[in-house]
Amino acid sequence: MGAPMASNLIKAGCDVTVWNRTKSKCDPLLSLGAKYEPTPAQVASSCDVTFAMLADPQSAAEVACGSSGAAEGLAPGKGYVDVSTVDGATSKLIGERITSTGASFLEAPVSGSKKPAEDGLLIFLTAGDESLYKRVAPLLDVMGKSRFYLGDVGNGAAMKLVVNMVMGSMMVSFSEGLLLSEKVGLDPNTLVEVISQGAISAPMFSLKGPSMVKAAYPPAFPLKHQQKDLRLALALAESVSQSIPTVAAANELYKAAKSLGLSDHDFSAVIEALKAKVQSQSSQ
Amino acid sequence: MGAPMASNLIKAGCDVTVWNRTKSKCDPLLSLGAKYEPTPAQVASSCDVTFAMLADPQSAAEVACGSSGAAEGLAPGKGYVDVSTVDGATSKLIGERITSTGASFLEAPVSGSKKPAEDGLLIFLTAGDESLYKRVAPLLDVMGKSRFYLGDVGNGAAMKLVVNMVMGSMMVSFSEGLLLSEKVGLDPNTLVEVISQGAISAPMFSLKGPSMVKAAYPPAFPLKHQQKDLRLALALAESVSQSIPTVAAANELYKAAKSLGLSDHDFSAVIEALKAKVQSQSSQ
Amino acid sequence: MGAPMASNLIKAGCDVTVWNRTKSKCDPLLSLGAKYEPTPAQVASSCDVTFAMLADPQSAAEVACGSSGAAEGLAPGKGYVDVSTVDGATSKLIGERITSTGASFLEAPVSGSKKPAEDGLLIFLTAGDESLYKRVAPLLDVMGKSRFYLGDVGNGAAMKLVVNMVMGSMMVSFSEGLLLSEKVGLDPNTLVEVISQGAISAPMFSLKGPSMVKAAYPPAFPLKHQQKDLRLALALAESVSQSIPTVAAANELYKAAKSLGLSDHDFSAVIEALKAKVQSQSSQ
Amino acid sequence: MGAPMASNLIKAGCDVTVWNRTKSKCDPLLSLGAKYEPTPAQVASSCDVTFAMLADPQSAAEVACGSSGAAEGLAPGKGYVDVSTVDGATSKLIGERITSTGASFLEAPVSGSKKPAEDGLLIFLTAGDESLYKRVAPLLDVMGKSRFYLGDVGNGAAMKLVVNMVMGSMMVSFSEGLLLSEKVGLDPNTLVEVISQGAISAPMFSLKGPSMVKAAYPPAFPLKHQQKDLRLALALAESVSQSIPTVAAANELYKAAKSLGLSDHDFSAVIEALKAKVQSQSSQ
Repeated sequence: MGAPMASNLIKAGCDVTVWNRTKSKCDPLLSLGAKYEPTPAQVASSCDVTFAMLADPQSAAEVACGSSGAAEGLAPGKGYVDVSTVDGATSKLIGERITSTGASFLEAPVSGSKKPAEDGLLIFLTAGDESLYKRVAPLLDVMGKSRFYLGDVGNGAAMKLVVNMVMGSMMVSFSEGLLLSEKVGLDPNTLVEVISQGAISAPMFSLKGPSMVKAAYPPAFPLKHQQKDLRLALALAESVSQSIPTVAAANELYKAAKSLGLSDHDFSAVIEALKAKVQSQSSQ
Repeated sequence: MGAPMASNLIKAGCDVTVWNRTKSKCDPLLSLGAKYEPTPAQVASSCDVTFAMLADPQSAAEVACGSSGAAEGLAPGKGYVDVSTVDGATSKLIGERITSTGASFLEAPVSGSKKPAEDGLLIFLTAGDESLYKRVAPLLDVMGKSRFYLGDVGNGAAMKLVVNMVMGSMMVSFSEGLLLSEKVGLDPNTLVEVISQGAISAPMFSLKGPSMVKAAYPPAFPLKHQQKDLRLALALAESVSQSIPTVAAANELYKAAKSLGLSDHDFSAVIEALKAKVQSQSSQ
Repeated sequence: MGAPMASNLIKAGCDVTVWNRTKSKCDPLLSLGAKYEPTPAQVASSCDVTFAMLADPQSAAEVACGSSGAAEGLAPGKGYVDVSTVDGATSKLIGERITSTGASFLEAPVSGSKKPAEDGLLIFLTAGDESLYKRVAPLLDVMGKSRFYLGDVGNGAAMKLVVNMVMGSMMVSFSEGLLLSEKVGLDPNTLVEVISQGAISAPMFSLKGPSMVKAAYPPAFPLKHQQKDLRLALALAESVSQSIPTVAAANELYKAAKSLGLSDHDFSAVIEALKAKVQSQSSQ
Repeated sequence: MGAPMASNLIKAGCDVTVWNRTKSKCDPLLSLGAKYEPTPAQVASSCDVTFAMLADPQSAAEVACGSSGAAEGLAPGKGYVDVSTVDGATSKLIGERITSTGASFLEAPVSGSKKPAEDGLLIFLTAGDESLYKRVAPLLDVMGKSRFYLGDVGNGAAMKLVVNMVMGSMMVSFSEGLLLSEKVGLDPNTLVEVISQGAISAPMFSLKGPSMVKAAYPPAFPLKHQQKDLRLALALAESVSQSIPTVAAANELYKAAKSLGLSDHDFSAVIEALKAKVQSQSSQ
């Protein structure tokens, strides 16, 4: 994800310095004109604003706070924008370390995957230092189509979780509709088309519906990650005693799908958990 | 609903004859150039194709099959298109009576409410006589933006039920997201906006979200009708032994909303069933 | 069920006249001293009180109201006690026909199966004519261990439905416990034993648990009947807008079990719907 | 809980030494003949077998492993039996510290509350050192009515969790039955009585039903603890990808009950979450 984002910044005329654990991954960017520094600390030290895009919370924390991490190169006046998707606790931890250097911190998880990143159509859910938010707004606009400032650090992570929760639950409702239509003799492809015309039309349905009908689930957002997000959303809801019964019901189906071996398929594979399956060596 | 549909046909240059139990309701159409006949039978007798739009299954059956009903004026070569929303059983009943006259029958419930009817943007879910479908296609295109032919009579009703089922369930997922976002300190209006940018963006969310946040539910589609559709969908699913757990969970919330006195509010009022409410005279 | 009940009445010294569509089924009772009459009408005509035990609502209605049915032999002063399990509507229909003869009517569905019937340990859930209830109380005490008078006709059926609803839902909770215990490495037989010692000990768990662990479901109460009762209970709850979410969730599992081909197994086979089953020819 | 258990041991003729953070709480036991030691370490040092009964995992860990904790007084040949209810992780932690002294460890959470403790009717769910289990069996039999040996440390905690999970879910099913019966015009007290006669009769229903009907929930097992156990059970189920949909649905109701302010009421107060409650200052 980081490469196409950096590429868009370079193409927009920004002065970009990059780092990656595996230097060769930076080659395409270097050929576009980017500079390279051998550690996150050195990137942070040589730039006004540093963007970090890591695969998971552990890596995000290490690159920010670890040995030769960005914090070591930060100072008052500089900004650090973490666009990785991490949990609220990790984000707060990173934020505290960054601000202890006198630099500013912005949490900015993105909504959108590889294609929107390439097309500069990401959505940024930012939280933290508002003046840093204003300062990097033109850069966010190069990489994305919209941006939200949500207040205290942690709110970006929370917003992304709620959106993914609604998404996970909607996918199950859609799956129930597809299977029911098929069982009563309708063509589920027609259901996809009818839905695409009306009030509940959503890009996700049009995108995933046709392959779901063919029982194909090429992984865009892995099922195990969707289930993890539902689990985290249920925990978040529990912390404020909010009842979310359809999410709870949906989560049980994602769990069932995991036990069918579908963890690494796309999350639309949850539809399989709604199909009746008689075991081959069943004693029934 | 019938008036704007007829109006669009007249404006498109069709020769239109109308009937309504309350004649005065036809006056605007008459002033546009429509003719009037005093019974459904006389309408059917004087026209090639008759469209019927009634408020409920009972009225639809009576206008088609009752005394001085359309069937009495039909004959081989004529067509009868029922665009009312009725259950599959009523539709089959009407279809049998119509075809017994030698005329052709098309079930064609519409998806879309008053505004799309005025704008000629309805969606027709048709089933029954395919040659009649082809014959009236140009007329459907005047009144709507898309049309589907779904096979045997009953399939139009079933398709509409499945779509409404997914809609009812999605509305609950969305409600859960709105309440959770608010409880954890996010602005639910921002959630509506974030969702509107991404893969789960749906017109319904953008349309209803802002008033739901204000706890306002002006009735577009009454909650009791949505709950009835969920009940019918659960019955349909049971008839084919299809498990639809999030729909079942959602239905319980619509029932709870009904017991809160929200039957005649918009179905988005289901969100109220997810709010914790302590009784004023509680003994707790 | 009727035979052991009649047998207990005879053994207690009652003067019993019997009828069955298949006369030979009455032979054991005749050898114990019962008289036989060739139609329900003649039984009713020759007895003070007539008990009816039929397999389903249709038979119950026919034996009471049909040609040569009991109603034809009834008259003021006589009593008719229907111990069949029928829905509230059928019970009211029978009751109206019976009372139109001037006779008294008592609805009295039983809780308990063949073994309790033989042992005189049934539970009678009666409703209707209270003086008839008092009059037959000594006879109910011969056949059962307890009896309840619940008011208006229909209340016996409703009470039985609510009890079966709680039973169906409990069976799913128990199934979830058995499977979870097994998956985390506990012996599910030990769970059955632990439960049998404490506050949630129930005869059903001790009776069904051991065979459920062996995936054996000899039909005592068929799964399809349990699912039908859950469906009726959900309809009853809907009629009064009562939310019953665990019943709704449980019902979806019974439906899933039906689609696995388990309709005629014992209702404890619902546990199979909670097991992950990968289809043998799966394309996954 | 510890006091009545120790009391039963003394009455049975055992030589008992006690300790409590608040010494005066031991006075009744001392007057029965118990000795007192000023620290857990000294109790462990002066006894062959030490029983620990603490209120929560933190206290259990501190009394076993803290400064002047039992571990400091233990040695090869001695036994330590923790009858507190703790999570599996804490139990393993305590077990490791205890066995590092050469002493034996038995995890033995009890099922049953104050009254069964007084009456010597507890149920012990033990796991850990099997020879210690055999050695203390006669003592467990003085304090309880049954005991189970479940294998590795952690299994006692897991078994208790599964039992409590089934209990929490059953309570919701029962609540649904009580409310439905009442809404359709039956007497819920009669439902309690009917249930008490049949296959789903459980002590919990007979004990709690009558006060639930009166909307009284004197805390025996606090609702917040039941909800916590459901949360932990859901997490346990997730760890093995076991779907438990009625538990998930029940958990949402306990959460709703918490948001109604019922955390410290008995868990049977979950029934309140199923009642329709219109807010006094509602804008509806």
